[in-house]
Amino acid sequence: MMKVYVDHAATTPLDIDAFNAMKPFLLNDFGNASQQYSFARTAKAALKAARVTIAKCINAEPEEIYFTSGGTESDNWAIKSTAFAFGNHRAIITSQIEHHAILRSCHAVERMGIPVFYLPVDSSGVVQPDILSEYIDDSTKMVSIMYANNEIGTIQPIKKLCEITHSKGALFHTDAVQAVGHIPIDVKELDIDMLSASAHKFNGPKGIGFLYIKKGTQIAPYADGGAQEFGMRAGTENIASIVAMAVALEKNCNRMKSVSDHLIGLEKLMTSLLKKAELDFIKNGSPKKIPGNISLSFKNAEGEMLLHRLDLMGISVSTGSACDSKNTQISHVLEAVHVSENYAKGTIRISLGYENTEEEIFYIVQSLMKILKR
Amino acid sequence: MMKVYVDHAATTPLDIDAFNAMKPFLLNDFGNASQQYSFARTAKAALKAARVTIAKCINAEPEEIYFTSGGTESDNWAIKSTAFAFGNHRAIITSQIEHHAILRSCHAVERMGIPVFYLPVDSSGVVQPDILSEYIDDSTKMVSIMYANNEIGTIQPIKKLCEITHSKGALFHTDAVQAVGHIPIDVKELDIDMLSASAHKFNGPKGIGFLYIKKGTQIAPYADGGAQEFGMRAGTENIASIVAMAVALEKNCNRMKSVSDHLIGLEKLMTSLLKKAELDFIKNGSPKKIPGNISLSFKNAEGEMLLHRLDLMGISVSTGSACDSKNTQISHVLEAVHVSENYAKGTIRISLGYENTEEEIFYIVQSLMKILKR
Repeated sequence: MMKVYVDHAATTPLDIDAFNAMKPFLLNDFGNASQQYSFARTAKAALKAARVTIAKCINAEPEEIYFTSGGTESDNWAIKSTAFAFGNHRAIITSQIEHHAILRSCHAVERMGIPVFYLPVDSSGVVQPDILSEYIDDSTKMVSIMYANNEIGTIQPIKKLCEITHSKGALFHTDAVQAVGHIPIDVKELDIDMLSASAHKFNGPKGIGFLYIKKGTQIAPYADGGAQEFGMRAGTENIASIVAMAVALEKNCNRMKSVSDHLIGLEKLMTSLLKKAELDFIKNGSPKKIPGNISLSFKNAEGEMLLHRLDLMGISVSTGSACDSKNTQISHVLEAVHVSENYAKGTIRISLGYENTEEEIFYIVQSLMKILKR
Repeated sequence: MMKVYVDHAATTPLDIDAFNAMKPFLLNDFGNASQQYSFARTAKAALKAARVTIAKCINAEPEEIYFTSGGTESDNWAIKSTAFAFGNHRAIITSQIEHHAILRSCHAVERMGIPVFYLPVDSSGVVQPDILSEYIDDSTKMVSIMYANNEIGTIQPIKKLCEITHSKGALFHTDAVQAVGHIPIDVKELDIDMLSASAHKFNGPKGIGFLYIKKGTQIAPYADGGAQEFGMRAGTENIASIVAMAVALEKNCNRMKSVSDHLIGLEKLMTSLLKKAELDFIKNGSPKKIPGNISLSFKNAEGEMLLHRLDLMGISVSTGSACDSKNTQISHVLEAVHVSENYAKGTIRISLGYENTEEEIFYIVQSLMKILKR
């Protein structure tokens, strides 16, 4: 049986060069990068170099990159430490289709008395700048809007949203976990204040990520303890994973154009095959979206049934976001974009990676036909 | 030149079996453990098995082990999430010689209005139970006392301290980062409520650790987002590192007795050689301490000078705790145990590991003699 992994929005295979870059720091140069002796020098130099590499990939300064244990930690940090930092407890604005790492962090600060507003999106999942303009005022402390949605791939008008935010003197954060390493990001050009990223979404290892924090941004440290990460995020540096993350990100950025073209090609092939097959489905999301993130809602089907039937055929897909996979309800994202119930329940997310092939796309569509056309 | 690594309290080499256990999860079974398809099954099973293994090592139940990014995160979680959990903002009691991950987390909650008391210790670094009895009352929410000190190795009378804590209805947490994998720990026998551990201190990888939380303990989740770690600590599971941590901990627990004997032997050898060499020094800490954690204060010497001169001779030691290495001041621990200034400034920490040899001990003492006897 063919084995087809098409759940790259949940996690990606570790790049082999990234793995090879980890190895020496796991096996030999294990020194604690915060120590003063020469044995720690290789680790310290690697830490510094990785920060430079990662910064370059999003056009940041190295000292604006703070390593964390992943996207969830970065999001928790951005929301919680901004909300309570420096006294004035003003409101946060976010969207209805954020990842749970943002939504539940917002719920946590709400429970502690910070008002949070959840902006609606249009039917393609876009936060309309006009709506932000309506909600934002001088009492807004921060706006956090995801760069690209994990379930339907929709890319937000980040630059415009950030402009509106800054015009009211608030901070702008973006959860860019699905975007970093997949589409070009220039934090200076966008002028954003904070950005969350996770290595395992761009062929780096799990358990490592970063938060970009623009110089001068008022935010409290997240983990208290040692002086690591410029005193903002304590804990012995995970050099092996940091180095691997840098290798993976640089490599993904270098091949971004060709991988994008490949994924867009595969996506077009899949859409046309599905149409030819005369399956009754909706493709969710906007035309401006992460290449290869394909959310399909099949009429009168059950997403979970589809997932399991496809799994039996060797195909790994998701029903909604990874973290939602234990729920069979319609996801908050599909609800927010108002997919009608007889379609929404039959939703699967196919998220492609560079290693996927045309042959695999044919196999997926054939498999879907077998399941749905009985 | 001989290369001698004796800074195991800062970090330890990764066990080769632990590395080999990581590899398949980095290279092949990279599936997101929270996903439903069969490709995620190996990861999911490994996560479960690792939790069982780790629980056994400290006599906990598997569902009482919550994976984190390391000791600092575990400490931050224990302090911050208990302090603010469930309304009543009562006091925290800790000691003056805690790791900065505890002390600075306590400072953070103090800034938010929670009273914190820092207990003094005796000259060997022990928190006297009587002193805790004096300070504790019904307004105490939690007592957090480290299991063993990172700078001087002193082991605390945890069971007694925990009894006193519980007699007043407060929770007991211990930062056991220096103890787990090094001395026997039985959370049931001790009856503690929370315990922090870090894998890279017991030959596991960096960037992974755990917090033991006794069933029924009132504590808020630390990272909000997905449903991982029983809804208490969101973020895609770092399976490779979790599995490696379990392998390293089990191995260290299995060989604990023989490694302890080896380290105690080396420590005795070093002490007797130093005495024979007629160097003027104090050995800090109590008789009841972590095997191989040797804090030495040399009269009228400079710790940093010693570190660098030893480094030139190929020997890696620490002056104080790793996270303090940028400061040349006397550490808070040496201050708390009242080492007189002309000794305290000349302090180095030699922390041995199972791979150290008698030959290395001779070399270290010879090197110290060369430096100090000029």
